[in-house]
Amino acid sequence: MTASPFEIDARAGQARAGVLRLPHGDVRTPAFVPLASTATVKSLSAAEVEALGYEMVLGNTFHLFLQPGHELIARLGGLHEFMGWRRPIVTDSGGFQVFSMGHGSVAEEIKRRRGDRESRVLSIAEEGVRFRSYVDGRERFMGPETSMEIQAALGSDVALAFDECTPFHSGRDYTARSTERTHRWLDRCIAWRKENAPDGQLFLGIVQGGVFEDLRRASAERVAGSAVDGVAVGGSLGREKEEMYEVVRWSLEPAPDAAPRHLLGIGDVDDLLAGVGAGIDMFDCAIPTRLGRHGTALVADPDNRWRLDLTKQAWAESRDPIAPDCPCPACREHTRGYLHYLARIGELTAARLLTLHNLTFIAAFMSGMRAAIVDGTFDDYSRGILAGASPY
Amino acid sequence: MTASPFEIDARAGQARAGVLRLPHGDVRTPAFVPLASTATVKSLSAAEVEALGYEMVLGNTFHLFLQPGHELIARLGGLHEFMGWRRPIVTDSGGFQVFSMGHGSVAEEIKRRRGDRESRVLSIAEEGVRFRSYVDGRERFMGPETSMEIQAALGSDVALAFDECTPFHSGRDYTARSTERTHRWLDRCIAWRKENAPDGQLFLGIVQGGVFEDLRRASAERVAGSAVDGVAVGGSLGREKEEMYEVVRWSLEPAPDAAPRHLLGIGDVDDLLAGVGAGIDMFDCAIPTRLGRHGTALVADPDNRWRLDLTKQAWAESRDPIAPDCPCPACREHTRGYLHYLARIGELTAARLLTLHNLTFIAAFMSGMRAAIVDGTFDDYSRGILAGASPY
Repeated sequence: MTASPFEIDARAGQARAGVLRLPHGDVRTPAFVPLASTATVKSLSAAEVEALGYEMVLGNTFHLFLQPGHELIARLGGLHEFMGWRRPIVTDSGGFQVFSMGHGSVAEEIKRRRGDRESRVLSIAEEGVRFRSYVDGRERFMGPETSMEIQAALGSDVALAFDECTPFHSGRDYTARSTERTHRWLDRCIAWRKENAPDGQLFLGIVQGGVFEDLRRASAERVAGSAVDGVAVGGSLGREKEEMYEVVRWSLEPAPDAAPRHLLGIGDVDDLLAGVGAGIDMFDCAIPTRLGRHGTALVADPDNRWRLDLTKQAWAESRDPIAPDCPCPACREHTRGYLHYLARIGELTAARLLTLHNLTFIAAFMSGMRAAIVDGTFDDYSRGILAGASPY
Repeated sequence: MTASPFEIDARAGQARAGVLRLPHGDVRTPAFVPLASTATVKSLSAAEVEALGYEMVLGNTFHLFLQPGHELIARLGGLHEFMGWRRPIVTDSGGFQVFSMGHGSVAEEIKRRRGDRESRVLSIAEEGVRFRSYVDGRERFMGPETSMEIQAALGSDVALAFDECTPFHSGRDYTARSTERTHRWLDRCIAWRKENAPDGQLFLGIVQGGVFEDLRRASAERVAGSAVDGVAVGGSLGREKEEMYEVVRWSLEPAPDAAPRHLLGIGDVDDLLAGVGAGIDMFDCAIPTRLGRHGTALVADPDNRWRLDLTKQAWAESRDPIAPDCPCPACREHTRGYLHYLARIGELTAARLLTLHNLTFIAAFMSGMRAAIVDGTFDDYSRGILAGASPY
């Protein structure tokens, strides 16, 4: 692993608070990275995301490759310029989307949006993956070099290795073979980047290996021993919270202390606490934005997994805000009764207000964790949140 | 017609600039009233609409009657409190929606949103209209008293008479009979309001009569001779612009000068100019918000009816803003190329940014007209806009 522009300012056990210095600015960690999969945090403008306090967003290599195409984005000045977001961007590799097309949530999400068109995996081989595009039905290919090329064209601050994200139900044999291939793909990513990587773009390897301790540990060693700037933890992390936390610990162990660590696709409140506690610096997840679009608000309620489902009839006549101490527009200006009504009839205004609320909640929570690490009160803070304390 | 709390500050020919003093505040006229049909200006929060400079919005009696119900809104403190909008509200009567269900744009709009459910007119009689609700399939009834009762429960600042909006293709006989019934309904609205109208709520009669000069003039006389606080011009206004302007002139002629005048459902740039020139004080229309949700921006381009269709392939690689002199977030922060992409993939962010843009355009334009009337330069202003001058 190479040296990275990451400064750790404070620690609490394994937890760290720091600053990642990137071409488009600094990112204070631990950081939550909202999804801007299609070059927008859905329903918000880039300026609004910045005003919420976020310093980095995640662009989706797979979606942007298919539409509008990375070449077009490059001609328009790169992803930052294209979407009007001038702070750092991390791009995922497309691996997750390519592999979950056949069996996962991505396929379903795309199906809902696109009507009859659906992407389909045509073949998975050493070279890469052939699939049919949901945009125009054309056959497309993505392999490690393609993914690196797209991420270079997008001009992200942080690129991720092209990996196979083994599904939850994979057995040990498949996971072992897949993880080996992911390691060979990591080498191909590194080889491509040696000649072609944009100046200053960081590169994170992805630890796979499913829930199998030896595979995870081996993968973690392999990534830590490669020319990467940091480590991302991907793939199936287990069925239970405790199993997930253990998988994260195995994945991080061999990584140099100074390397930034990203936990992919995780964003529940208790998981963010546990992740930070285990030494994770960055998270990306659809949870706050997707829940918001579907009528659910994040609240300080551990018994309900920090979720308040505003579409429930119980809120129809409520004159209370979602949270009286939340500074977001949904809470300052509106009642649960009104938001219930808007969410039930599927109004855009509901999607937007609840997206703003959920990202306000997570921003306050991340900022609380950072402050607690610096103040030496992370354990208290963590216990408080798990007991239902407000993050505001 | 009764005295109304309307002050005219300046005139330019028939055009007037004034202030309508209402229970929830003042509305400077000529005013454009954005639609908040379902208790929200779609994709915007109430605070954002106010920040755009709008002083009144229009709530929809028909939609709010069916969902969430006026009784519920009343229990939650009325429509202002419910939607978090503390400035004036005008409510339409539901007549337009009830009657256009069978054959009009409302039916199609509802159909698109609701899937298989569709409202259907079951019977039209002297008493009122029976129809099947698109929300739950139940049989519902609306007549003049129902409409007044709903508007009273909503607590709007300005209520509109329950009328039949005769469709475009109606012949003279049908239009004559329908207009007569609308006049009898006006009397029933007034009778109901004598006992039950909320304090301070203004009431506008609606002039119908289709495109037939004698029917229009008779209807205008009938409304002007009734206990109303102002006059609204409704119904079919003709196929050509010139015919429409004539229908508006007939409809306004007998109205006392001091009465506020509302032109229903009109919002194209040249029509707003002509309406103001003919003495109209208020307009409501779906155009700016609906166009925005479908990817079209309002621009200073008379040759294209002030429309810029951003979904056209021509804009895919444009790095220009919609309008360089527009202060809205879409123009300040984003390119046509990015908005084209977002609109093509149906992103919420596009609907929102273009709604903000279009309402910014109309707000600047209305404010320009008011200033020009006050400055005595309305004719110049009007000629300029028709020649493609920017409203900013």
